[in-house]
Amino acid sequence: MKPNEYYRNLEGQYLFKDIVDRSEAYLSSHPGQRLLKLGVGDVTLPLPDVIVRAIHEAADEMACQATFRGYGPEQGYKWLRQAVIDNDYLPYGVNINIDEVFISDGAGSDLGNLSELFAKDNKVAVMNPAYPAYVDSTIMAGREITYLNCLAENHFIPQLPEEKADIIYLCFPNNPTGIVLTRQELKKWVEYARANGSVIIFDGAYESFISRPDIPHSIYEIEGADEVAIEVRSYSKSAGFTAIRCGYTIVPEKTGLKALWLRRQTTKYNGTSYISQKAALATYTPEGKKSSRANVEYYKQTARLIKTQLEEAGLSVYGGENAPYIWCRAPYGWDSWRFFDFLLQQCQVVSTPGVGFGSAGEGFVRFSAFSAREDCIEALARIKKTLISNRI
Amino acid sequence: MKPNEYYRNLEGQYLFKDIVDRSEAYLSSHPGQRLLKLGVGDVTLPLPDVIVRAIHEAADEMACQATFRGYGPEQGYKWLRQAVIDNDYLPYGVNINIDEVFISDGAGSDLGNLSELFAKDNKVAVMNPAYPAYVDSTIMAGREITYLNCLAENHFIPQLPEEKADIIYLCFPNNPTGIVLTRQELKKWVEYARANGSVIIFDGAYESFISRPDIPHSIYEIEGADEVAIEVRSYSKSAGFTAIRCGYTIVPEKTGLKALWLRRQTTKYNGTSYISQKAALATYTPEGKKSSRANVEYYKQTARLIKTQLEEAGLSVYGGENAPYIWCRAPYGWDSWRFFDFLLQQCQVVSTPGVGFGSAGEGFVRFSAFSAREDCIEALARIKKTLISNRI
Repeated sequence: MKPNEYYRNLEGQYLFKDIVDRSEAYLSSHPGQRLLKLGVGDVTLPLPDVIVRAIHEAADEMACQATFRGYGPEQGYKWLRQAVIDNDYLPYGVNINIDEVFISDGAGSDLGNLSELFAKDNKVAVMNPAYPAYVDSTIMAGREITYLNCLAENHFIPQLPEEKADIIYLCFPNNPTGIVLTRQELKKWVEYARANGSVIIFDGAYESFISRPDIPHSIYEIEGADEVAIEVRSYSKSAGFTAIRCGYTIVPEKTGLKALWLRRQTTKYNGTSYISQKAALATYTPEGKKSSRANVEYYKQTARLIKTQLEEAGLSVYGGENAPYIWCRAPYGWDSWRFFDFLLQQCQVVSTPGVGFGSAGEGFVRFSAFSAREDCIEALARIKKTLISNRI
Repeated sequence: MKPNEYYRNLEGQYLFKDIVDRSEAYLSSHPGQRLLKLGVGDVTLPLPDVIVRAIHEAADEMACQATFRGYGPEQGYKWLRQAVIDNDYLPYGVNINIDEVFISDGAGSDLGNLSELFAKDNKVAVMNPAYPAYVDSTIMAGREITYLNCLAENHFIPQLPEEKADIIYLCFPNNPTGIVLTRQELKKWVEYARANGSVIIFDGAYESFISRPDIPHSIYEIEGADEVAIEVRSYSKSAGFTAIRCGYTIVPEKTGLKALWLRRQTTKYNGTSYISQKAALATYTPEGKKSSRANVEYYKQTARLIKTQLEEAGLSVYGGENAPYIWCRAPYGWDSWRFFDFLLQQCQVVSTPGVGFGSAGEGFVRFSAFSAREDCIEALARIKKTLISNRI
């Protein structure tokens, strides 16, 4: 048996391990101190009651012969797929057919597995910095990568690739930079893909953080995007489902990939937990929408707080307005890890070094607005005080 | 963008659609009749109370700030992985390290996704007949297949391949034939794999149906299997989890594939639902074990009933003793679909044509013991009466 040789080309996944190791080393040499964790991209608010009730009801159905159910459709129950269309697309003027909606156990699985639909011989464009799974799943498939560097001089907006790219991963609102694309900017990418026969894999996991009216909620708001784009969404950040596991992917008929994805899912996936699907359905009830919006609003307020305070500390800060992430430039001449270590040791604050998201993230750290509010307030007060007293 | 060209080599998935179409056609020309469904491989008994309670408790934890949790480890919570070792392996004298246990959303996903760990250039051996995902995921990866024909003259036991096979899919207790392998027979495969540098992907989804003491519960009961075998298990059939979604895969360190699978899962999977993992943990409580065993015993009694009655009807019948499936030869000279149609039209019974599991399944149909007991009793009475009165 010959193992997949491309796995050897993967770089080690040391980012989060390094963060944990350095944090633990600090704590063991400073016993009794508590670290304020502003790095983690995971929700912290409890699930709204309406969702918890939906889980209880689904469990009770499974306890009773008359309402017990086994395997569901691999692509998800129709009631959830229809709710996706009615709530996430129709209000934005986007028409999606129910057969184009595929419920899954989360965006992470779909973003990784979509890679299977393509021949090995495709050139892939990935933003730099980016969520690491785009790069890693591309390397695992043995494909060549073009990096789209997102730099301050372009407001962290990727530029169209110079060489032709067949598969393009885009994520807006962006992780890690917190940057969004206007309709006009996104249109350029759809036009590029249509002109070059490319496919765009659009990661919309942070869509619920959009409030500016000129920012599209879905790539399908752009004319012709249904010919070239697959959109991946998640209930993780919009409704706090990181433990519950539910998301969905839109694969339009016109991309020519719908039948392949259906076959992939019916072969290698046995459907999303009935309980998770019922929980997802509850997010679309009036109470579910209100509670989820309130939670997102809470995180957005935290993002504003972090952003404002970092600016008051004299730092250059990006994102954090239509996204839960704040992208913060390290003090002049510092690299990501130096700033990380400074924040850890001088302020007892844990951030995420930007270089962990790709070489173009060097010199930045990411702050997450999912962190506990009180910790953020305390952390930012310490950062301001320390930077000012150190004249950095 | 070039799509995965190997998908074109897949045959259409028409089996279950054909079954539905023929069933519906029969009903529309015979209004008022009810079909007795003995085809479907899906559980029907409700979840035991202890599991339903565990789901309720997990939901309540998510409702409260102090006990809310987000992402879990991609490879599953340690408490569940330890319970797997303590309950499913140690009692059989098998030592598994906790790092070798990977919790998943079910055997279907793992059996499909494991294909990614291997280079394209591997020769794959698959039993014929078999669960279709082994063949389809192999075709999707562009690999060559050797079929291991399981025929009556060999008691449906596969013979070692004549050409060298690098990856071997084995499933025991078998779907669809219901056949099991003794320790001695399984040992041959482990020795073959060790001699040839092959890997065995061992699908143990029906392990809980084993009662004969000479049948191994795990491939790791065979010495040296931890060097060559990956074992895939599921709570679907043992505890009725086809809607809940939870399973696990053992990838021993000595196979050289553990690090690859960990990397695959941490890249393309965000962990199994916390609620599903808590439900799985409850299957290991004394009450959970007792209830799950009682459900499996119920299905086993149904299997015995189907088997005995088919034999009394004069048919040649296999499996059904340590497995939920009964493999039934069609009357002399009939193919699978002719027997299927006869059962549908003369007895109003829905079975599964054996040829749907591969060419070597031609001339057989599969009956499932997961079907409702009353339907089975009625169905078998009709089959006996019809066959005898037609002198078949």
